[in-house]
Formats: sequence, structure tokens, C-alpha cells
Amino acid sequence: MTPEKSLTLHKKLKGKLEIKAKIALKTRRILSQVYTPGVAVVVRQINKQKRSVFNLTIKNNTVAVVTDGSAVLGLGNVGAEASIPVMEGKCIIFKEFAGLNAFPICLTTQNPEKIIETIKFISPVFAAINLEDIAAPKCFEIEEKLQNLGIPVVHDDQQATAIIVLAGLINAGKVTGKKLTESRIAVCGTGAAGTAVIKLLYFYGCRKITAVDSKGIIGSYRKDLSAYKKEIAKLTNKENIKGSLATACRNCDILIGVSQKGLFSENIIKSMNQKPIVFALANPDPEIRRDEAIKAGVYVYASGRSDDKNMINNALVFPGFFKGLIKWKINKATDQMKVNAATSISSLIVKPTKNHFIPDIFDKRLVKVITESLRN
Amino acid sequence: MTPEKSLTLHKKLKGKLEIKAKIALKTRRILSQVYTPGVAVVVRQINKQKRSVFNLTIKNNTVAVVTDGSAVLGLGNVGAEASIPVMEGKCIIFKEFAGLNAFPICLTTQNPEKIIETIKFISPVFAAINLEDIAAPKCFEIEEKLQNLGIPVVHDDQQATAIIVLAGLINAGKVTGKKLTESRIAVCGTGAAGTAVIKLLYFYGCRKITAVDSKGIIGSYRKDLSAYKKEIAKLTNKENIKGSLATACRNCDILIGVSQKGLFSENIIKSMNQKPIVFALANPDPEIRRDEAIKAGVYVYASGRSDDKNMINNALVFPGFFKGLIKWKINKATDQMKVNAATSISSLIVKPTKNHFIPDIFDKRLVKVITESLRN
Repeated sequence: MTPEKSLTLHKKLKGKLEIKAKIALKTRRILSQVYTPGVAVVVRQINKQKRSVFNLTIKNNTVAVVTDGSAVLGLGNVGAEASIPVMEGKCIIFKEFAGLNAFPICLTTQNPEKIIETIKFISPVFAAINLEDIAAPKCFEIEEKLQNLGIPVVHDDQQATAIIVLAGLINAGKVTGKKLTESRIAVCGTGAAGTAVIKLLYFYGCRKITAVDSKGIIGSYRKDLSAYKKEIAKLTNKENIKGSLATACRNCDILIGVSQKGLFSENIIKSMNQKPIVFALANPDPEIRRDEAIKAGVYVYASGRSDDKNMINNALVFPGFFKGLIKWKINKATDQMKVNAATSISSLIVKPTKNHFIPDIFDKRLVKVITESLRN
Repeated sequence: MTPEKSLTLHKKLKGKLEIKAKIALKTRRILSQVYTPGVAVVVRQINKQKRSVFNLTIKNNTVAVVTDGSAVLGLGNVGAEASIPVMEGKCIIFKEFAGLNAFPICLTTQNPEKIIETIKFISPVFAAINLEDIAAPKCFEIEEKLQNLGIPVVHDDQQATAIIVLAGLINAGKVTGKKLTESRIAVCGTGAAGTAVIKLLYFYGCRKITAVDSKGIIGSYRKDLSAYKKEIAKLTNKENIKGSLATACRNCDILIGVSQKGLFSENIIKSMNQKPIVFALANPDPEIRRDEAIKAGVYVYASGRSDDKNMINNALVFPGFFKGLIKWKINKATDQMKVNAATSISSLIVKPTKNHFIPDIFDKRLVKVITESLRN
């Protein structure tokens, strides 16, 4: 796949989404039922009983994919317009895999308070809000402050990424014979995804996690930590190690990259324990390419690219996760629900191998088991 | 058509819109072109050249139908949730008649400044903004303040209603032999629609207009007029008449209702000049029903209902009007464009009669001639 082909395809399509009528407007009778005057009775019904909006409108199954364009893929702060192709991509994945309607809301403000307010204002028509590609740390604040909106608000770069990483690690552990809760884990990158991965692994029982940001290993001794990174310091680095990414990776079993292209060198890989597990999830360009990783001795490798095998990408999770939240009317996803979702995904591979330990994104069972895992 | 049938249909449909992918996600190759990593090249292209967003995304042909639910049909301030069925109805009309994607944005704020700000924030993904069912006078302010957004912002209850009323009057004039610019015209209702009708008729050359609001005839002598109604006073009531709706209608040729159910009595109709023209456009229940109007002596009658013949409804206009604005990249519609659109509609009926003087909403030529009328 060359970049030119993708550009040509987008030029041809002029938008990957289409909004269609579910009923053909062929006769005046139909028109008068779906529009004035017939629609008035539906308006009155919802006005009388607000909850009926879930049964009478697209609020039933429509997701807003909301971004401010501040952290789009690994491409950085590209702004609202340039984020649209990615959001459209998410929307069609929602539809094709989970049957949910999804619509991109790409905002020209990057102010957290304004983003929160705008989402509140536009919420009536949606069953759920998918926060997307919003930079840390404001993504944490935005997600937190919207938890009482009355519909689920999920920053999927955090939650769905954490779920698919945990699902992958459960099976990679089986492949390598490593016990996840006793493995030494380095997480490179403490943005939205990294923070959520660390929190979920901690909830799962992992206690040997070391987190690394652009300034080195995170520890409570550091004076430059934001409130969010102070939380990470509490959950990680029990031995109070100082140093760089290379220090963090030495003798670790698992290395998870949610950072930037090319950060994992051959030497870093070679310093890890036997049968190293490496998830290089920076997108579109991973921290280390598959061929380089295997050459350096990685035993279980995954990237986030859809053209790689064993894709560790939130796209495997979010269709089923949102479908479940909407179906079971869950307004707030708990950590236990996320673990259940991860376990349900990993259990789809009965005998995981290093070449096949994560279900294919086209596996029809994926959405079903995730949806079902959220059931009370 | 019974109201129950419409409610049942809405319960069955659970939303009248559906968002679909224009390309099936059948293979990893396709997935990697429309999502990560292939989509990155499209992001970079738009980031480099912002205008290319029009060629590469749904911004190409997608309209936001934005409301705050403050003046929904003739049902009043029903709020955001209850407005959704109407907005969905508009959206499917956009699609079915003009091939445009349209998505409902129903806001929980009714503060004009907040509405303006929210529309600015969400604008990147849209080719045009259709303001809908927002109460007067704030609808005027909102429309005015968004005219420099870089995409057309049209309050269609004003502009499209004015266009279809003018189109109807041009042909009703032919049917009755009345010259429009010399006819005495009473406009009952000075909300969004009424104000726009008066302004466009004035631009067209009508100088004998009397406007009536809930307190009676509008005249510059009144001390209770808002800034917007003072503008109406300047364009109307040259003779400085005082009085009620009944006074305004006496000896007038044309009566246009954009007000409330049942306001036009038999006596009012009987006081009009010969061959009275009455457009009773309150929705869903007109100011006077067709049978009552004909009985009272109306010569040319129309309502806004889609189950009535000669429907005078903005639904005949907005699909083609928005299509034209988008197609010809017009960011602001002028009064002359509106007159051109009205003339193009009326010209579709070669020999207008009192039973058929407005094209059917299903007339395929409608969107074409309106779109073409906006061409430079």
C-alpha cells in the first residue's frame, strides 16, 4: 500500500461516510408521517417523556467521535480539519463492525472547558461520546468532567487501548510462559494511552511497572511531574530507579511503546529478559519495526498497524465496547468491565502462538464477546 | 394519516437516518488505506493545504441542521431532545431530494452567544449550516453574526420560507390577475418566517404590506417594538394604520399567516378584496383549514402541510438552495439570489391554476432549477 493510493482513494470518495434515509420519501403519505404534520406527535411524545427519545430517534444508536485535533495518530497537533479523515475512518469502523452510527465532531477549540461545554451542548442526539485524539493531560480532565453526562463518555485512546494491550499481554504471557502479574513491564510514553495502560495493568495486579516519558523514568523523586504523572509515580517504579528508557528496559520482560517512531533500538531489545514481548504501538510508524525487532531477538511482537499481523489497535475494541455500553445502558465503564472485555478478547485465541495471539480485526466474534462481557 | 401511525413508524425505525460507509471494510488492505497507517498521508495533505479538506472529506457535501429546540414547528419551545424527530426529517429530505448528507445538531443551550460559539467550534466538518427552528429574535442575531464563518449559514425558516412564499405569490398573482407589487398584503406573524417574508417582498418591490404581531398592527408609533420589529415598521404600513389583524386584512388582496392555528376567521376572509389569496402556513395546524377557507370565499389557498395540495413549505426550497450554495461556493446568499430562486420555482408551472400553482415537492426539476438559479 503506497501513500499515493490512499490519497487517490480519498480524492475519489470525497468523504468515507454517507448519511442515508432509512425510509424512502416516495409518497406524500410517507413524507407527512416523517415530517410535518405527522412528526408533531413524536415531538409531543418526547416533550412529555424525555427518555422516549432513545426509542424514537437516532439517539438509540449514534456515537459522536469528538476531537480537537490536538494529538492525531502519532502526527501531533494537526487541528480540526486535518483530523477529519481519521475520525471518518473511526466512524466507518463503528458502522462496519458494530452496526453503530457514528459522526465526526471536529472542534476548532482546544480549550478543555470549551470542549466540555460543547460536548454537553451537542449531546442530546447521541447515545455515547467517543473522545478521540485529544492530547494529554487535558484528555483526562475532559473525560472525568463528563462522567455525569447521562450517556457514556469514553476516551478511547485511553480505555480501548488499555483493554487491547491487556488482552494481548494475557496471551503473550501464555506464549512465553511469563506470568503477567510477576513480569517486569516498561511502558514508554505516558500520554493518554500510556497512562491508561499503566492504570489498567495495575488494577489487573501488575506491580513491577516502570514508566518512561520524554525526560526519563518516572519516579516520585522527580520535581517536574504534573498531577497526572504523580499518579503514575504512585503506581510504578517501587524500587525508585532513576535513568533513561534504556535503564527501564534492562532485564524487563515486556516493553510497551505508546510514544514515537523509532525509539526502541537494537541495544534496548537485547538488554531485555529472555523471550521479550514488545508491543510497539506508535502510529503510523512504530517504535521499532517488526523485522528489526525480530532480528534483535524479540519473541512476541505486535504493532498498531492494520497491515501488520497481531495488530494491537483500539479498533479491535471500541466497536464492541461502545456497543456494549449502549446496549446495557452503562453510563460509566469500570476497571473491572475493562478487564472483562480484555479477557473476553484473549479467550478467542484458544492456543495462542507468537504469530497469532490476537484475534483478527475481521473476526466476527470480536464485537459479540466484548459486548457480552459488559453485561451485568 | 393518523398520529398513531406516525408514532408507530418512528418506534419501528428508531431513527430515520443511518450513517453508512461508502467503502466496505472487507480487507486489511482497504482498512489500512482508510484508517491507520494509510490515512496519515491524507491528514498531512490537509494540514499542509487546508482547502483540500473540501476534496478529501465529507466537508465536501455535508450540512449541519442546527437547532436549540426553541421554536419547533408551531409547537413552541420543546427543547433539544423533542426537536430531534423534526431535524431528522429535514436531514432525510436533504438526502432524498438533493443528495446532500445532513446531520442534526440539537443543542441544550438556548443562549445566542453560546449557540454562535458552538456552531463555530463544530463547523470544520460541514459545508453549510442550516439554522432551524430557533425562536425570533435571537435567530436573526445568530444568523447575522455567523455570516463570516467561511461556509454558508442560512436560517432556513427565514430564507427558504420567504423564497417559497414569493414563488407562490408570483403564480397566485397570475391566477387571480393581481399584480404582486401593487397588491395589498397582510402578513400575520413577525417571527423568523414573517420577518424574512416581509423583507423579501419589499426587496421584490411590494410597498403595500401590513404586518401584524400578537399585539396588533406594527407601526412606527408603537413604543413596544424591538430593534427587529422597528425594521419591519420601516418597510410596512406606509399609511400608519392602527388596529388588529381584522383591520389589517380589510380590503387586502393577500393574507399570509406564519403564526398560529385558527387565527383566520370567516369574517376576516370575507373582509378581503375580491379573489383573496390566503397562505395559512402555521404548522402542523394552519391559521385556517382549506375547507373553511374555500367556504369563506378564498380563491387561492395554500398551507404548509405535506398532505395538502399546493404545499407552501420551505422543504420545497432548502434542498436545492443549499445544494446551489455549496456547489457554487457561495458563502452568503443575497436577496437577488433569493428572488432568482423564487422565480425559478414559479416558472416550473407554465399555466398556474388555483388548484395547481406550486410544483409538487416530488417534482425532480425543483432542486435542479433552484441550484441553477444560484449560479453566477
